Amino acid sequence: MKIKRIDHVAIAVDNIDHALVKWQQALGLEPGVRELVSSQKTEAVLLPVGESNIELIEPKGNEGLQKFLEKRGPGLHHIAVEVEGIEAALVLLKSLHVPLIDEAPRIGARGHKVAFLHPRATGGVLVELVEAEHSVGPGGQP
Amino acid sequence: MKIKRIDHVAIAVDNIDHALVKWQQALGLEPGVRELVSSQKTEAVLLPVGESNIELIEPKGNEGLQKFLEKRGPGLHHIAVEVEGIEAALVLLKSLHVPLIDEAPRIGARGHKVAFLHPRATGGVLVELVEAEHSVGPGGQP
Repeated sequence: MKIKRIDHVAIAVDNIDHALVKWQQALGLEPGVRELVSSQKTEAVLLPVGESNIELIEPKGNEGLQKFLEKRGPGLHHIAVEVEGIEAALVLLKSLHVPLIDEAPRIGARGHKVAFLHPRATGGVLVELVEAEHSVGPGGQP
Repeated sequence: MKIKRIDHVAIAVDNIDHALVKWQQALGLEPGVRELVSSQKTEAVLLPVGESNIELIEPKGNEGLQKFLEKRGPGLHHIAVEVEGIEAALVLLKSLHVPLIDEAPRIGARGHKVAFLHPRATGGVLVELVEAEHSVGPGGQP
């Protein structure tokens, strides 16, 4: 499995607008793409940092995220890494008995294919695999 | 304040060796630099991912980290971003009344200058500023 970069580090927040003010004041980060992600019942906004992003996520019906906030308060929620060939990666991980939440990718923020590993896979950290729909470069070269 | 990239995402673990096996099995990540960081009373190992790293940290006398593990179990602990001019950044943040843990940098892993913002600064996420000692490129150009 080829991992290209950390696509984003996701932070659970109660209120995106309030959190954005904090991240702008503390680190001067500016918001990029913001969207309602219906498949995950969240609202998400990306704050670009180098080749990666900090992603603020607020539950919009996502019970797991709501419970996380009630239990732990706002904070680091998961890491997403960009992979090449997400379907093949998931087949490989399944064959290795790596515990998965999603055995097949679904459509997440920005229309990307995404799949979550179970936190047991890493000993406690929720990891998301991401593949951009158009991750192939000009001329078909990755 | 100029933020160049996410330097690392730190994960608190009970045992680095056990955690390394998990991260290698689940994501194929290979360990890079590993060291005892005496200033922080931790052991740390970096797993490079693109321009960033996942950092596994195990307490070696660090009471705060030990308490974190006892309370929450292994998991995401903090984000470190690389900045240009960490001293000036801290002066700026202080003038803006951004809550800081360290008002002056200290020496962290890899001999880098590091300083932590208080989690209140971001509404719940511990953020570390990092500046490499030799962050100036060839010819003195940043």
